[in-house]
Amino acid sequence: MSRELHLAGFLIASHVTHSHAAWRHPASETDYLGPGYYQRVARTLERGKFDFLFFADLLATPVRYGNDIRVPLQSGTQASATLDPSLVAAGLANVTDRIGLAITKSTTYFHPYEVARIFATLDHLSGGRAGWNVVTSLNQAEAQNFGAQDHLGHDERYERAQEFLEVAYKLWGSWDTDALVRDKVSGVFADPDKVRTVDHEGTWFKTRGPLTVPHSPQSRPVIIQAGSSPVGKDFAARWAEAIFEIDPTPEGRRAYYDDVKSRAVNFGRNPDDIKIFPSFVPFVGETESIAREKQAFHNELADPISGLITLSVHTDHDFSRYDLDAPLEDLVVPGTQGLFDVARRLSASENLTLRDIGKLYAQGVLLPQFVGTAEQVADQIEAGFTGGEADGYILSAAQAPGTFHDFVDFVVPELQRRGLFRTEYTGSTLRDHLGLGPASLTPAARRASVVA
Amino acid sequence: MSRELHLAGFLIASHVTHSHAAWRHPASETDYLGPGYYQRVARTLERGKFDFLFFADLLATPVRYGNDIRVPLQSGTQASATLDPSLVAAGLANVTDRIGLAITKSTTYFHPYEVARIFATLDHLSGGRAGWNVVTSLNQAEAQNFGAQDHLGHDERYERAQEFLEVAYKLWGSWDTDALVRDKVSGVFADPDKVRTVDHEGTWFKTRGPLTVPHSPQSRPVIIQAGSSPVGKDFAARWAEAIFEIDPTPEGRRAYYDDVKSRAVNFGRNPDDIKIFPSFVPFVGETESIAREKQAFHNELADPISGLITLSVHTDHDFSRYDLDAPLEDLVVPGTQGLFDVARRLSASENLTLRDIGKLYAQGVLLPQFVGTAEQVADQIEAGFTGGEADGYILSAAQAPGTFHDFVDFVVPELQRRGLFRTEYTGSTLRDHLGLGPASLTPAARRASVVA
Repeated sequence: MSRELHLAGFLIASHVTHSHAAWRHPASETDYLGPGYYQRVARTLERGKFDFLFFADLLATPVRYGNDIRVPLQSGTQASATLDPSLVAAGLANVTDRIGLAITKSTTYFHPYEVARIFATLDHLSGGRAGWNVVTSLNQAEAQNFGAQDHLGHDERYERAQEFLEVAYKLWGSWDTDALVRDKVSGVFADPDKVRTVDHEGTWFKTRGPLTVPHSPQSRPVIIQAGSSPVGKDFAARWAEAIFEIDPTPEGRRAYYDDVKSRAVNFGRNPDDIKIFPSFVPFVGETESIAREKQAFHNELADPISGLITLSVHTDHDFSRYDLDAPLEDLVVPGTQGLFDVARRLSASENLTLRDIGKLYAQGVLLPQFVGTAEQVADQIEAGFTGGEADGYILSAAQAPGTFHDFVDFVVPELQRRGLFRTEYTGSTLRDHLGLGPASLTPAARRASVVA
Repeated sequence: MSRELHLAGFLIASHVTHSHAAWRHPASETDYLGPGYYQRVARTLERGKFDFLFFADLLATPVRYGNDIRVPLQSGTQASATLDPSLVAAGLANVTDRIGLAITKSTTYFHPYEVARIFATLDHLSGGRAGWNVVTSLNQAEAQNFGAQDHLGHDERYERAQEFLEVAYKLWGSWDTDALVRDKVSGVFADPDKVRTVDHEGTWFKTRGPLTVPHSPQSRPVIIQAGSSPVGKDFAARWAEAIFEIDPTPEGRRAYYDDVKSRAVNFGRNPDDIKIFPSFVPFVGETESIAREKQAFHNELADPISGLITLSVHTDHDFSRYDLDAPLEDLVVPGTQGLFDVARRLSASENLTLRDIGKLYAQGVLLPQFVGTAEQVADQIEAGFTGGEADGYILSAAQAPGTFHDFVDFVVPELQRRGLFRTEYTGSTLRDHLGLGPASLTPAARRASVVA
């Protein structure tokens, strides 16, 4: 095969995923606070030869809906309970061999020295399987947990993120690949000519270096991003090697794909060095009608309030003040028109209410659902992959680990039969799986980091 | 047995321990960047029924000696290469069942929301085996890595640490034990009456809360400390449940024991609720002469420069400016007299040079060495335990994992034979192992946290 399809699994270290209803499914894991659940998911995806398992993260109970913690906690919405994913992933590094482990870290609330050290450690512990989903955090509740009354402005956040990555790259480059000598007899531990301070003094950060962690197997984690604003897409086009995307329609996904790839070209990058992963929720069955029933069963479990809480966070607008049964037409909320249009398209009905929108949103934050037999789901994947919308897909679970079992047992063999997906890992690092060359830490990345 | 002996193992996620020579030993592990080494140590100590494995941490290459990174890197001194221990410990939580996992986190460079979340996560992932070694970081190189030109003053650091712990306790208490309902049918995830914001606004920190992590098995990590100054000892007496201590002489250890226990009583605590762990390096052999040869072999590997680098950090004084062969008598360095006296006592010789001190320091930062057959080492442990110097001991390795194998295979059975040490774990949490009752998060701890 000339182009290789890539597959990733999406999780939050929590009871829910994009689907706010995941935890209510009768077959879903109930102990999402212990390590066993994550082990089972990671091993299942590794059995399916997935590129990586991805952990989103959220640093606060969402309070944008009515400025209240009671409602999100009662409904178990996204972020109402979330473990620190870096520890979960480090655990998985000890019990898996091949699958990549990508975690989210915000550039807004931590110092780059700490974050660079976490990822260099994870890359060592996993033998080169670390990925970093760089987020710039935009949620006021997070800011309040970390002692800031308000979050930074949008552009300031990206400027800070830009410098954050520059500092992290310098720290990862502070040890050369062959700096570690470890000669027990002579007592020479490292070659001092191959380790250096970084002496960074910028607008946001100061650090001397070197990192305490020697050069890691991949040099640095694979950089993952999910920018959707113009500034965010530029940031992604400049830095990202994998992009996680939410777009409910094939047209939207194709437009995003073309847009980001051409932005990357404008930054002097090879567009093949950025793999774009749209997300979907799969419902797979032995027959199409089984799959459709599974989908309907899941979607019915979604709690409208739970969805409206997340919608309030995503739009930075408090939806608690409206009548749930008011027709959507009567709501004039700046910035939501496109989103409401999408909801209308996803839904059968034309006369949606706010309750309907909440329910749709709780079913998976407007992620598309790929439904059918193994062949039908594989058809949708193949069409998108060959039709210019994706280099791979990231699967979000309607219930876990069940959704991943179904996909690995039904759909992966079909994709392999079609020659679209690997039947065995051919490399050992996440970069290998993604078909990325050696990581750049010096001129290329540095140039790309200069704001155009 | 009425009183139970406790045992812990000391590591840095690195090539050295207190012994700067550990990495040069022919049998020592050479891959201290992968997970296998830590797994082997943890499983060995778990086989020996140890209470916990302890990870120190250092956030910078030590540059106090000549303001230079070259010398520490070449000699492989302490902190020249160190992984993030929170990820290492999270990994071990996945591959061990009983042994406690204690890690170091500074209160100086992070926000308490992050640290509280890390420990609540580790406590969940390990099923209640988390411990937190609270350090207030006093090293300028660390400050420079985290963007601060100079570290905080001594008293300021302890004031910050005090508030840091208060905030962490509030966050750990933000979810009641039984707040998680998880009723899939009704869709009630948590009882909103059992989760609350903390709304902390203090001198150093602000946070709203609640924590994103539900109440963890131990309620919070076991608090570990190593205060040695008067303010540090008060801090330890107020907060700590296990204390890690370095003192080379039995008299010094007895004095420390009495001092800290009586300080604890002054803060209204039961002195049995603080377990004091002096540290030592064991050298065990089939015969005493084998053990003595092992000791001599190890001690000879110690590099004087490597030791002087750490001595420079510990005394905040640059020893690179002196002649290595100058007699110690000629050096007048404020604050080192007691330390030099200790070195003279540990050494056979009276006419020590700076090189000798460096070598002694590199052998284990003046930790006592317990040397001999299983019976002889057990005698020393028993004498200290029954003689008022210790509730348990923390072992530091002359080489790893070998030192731990020797101790577990030779000495542990002898301690068990004497009825001093458990033959099986009787509980599942670190608090259980330490014989501590349920953790307090509310009034008792809060009262104890008020500066007297």
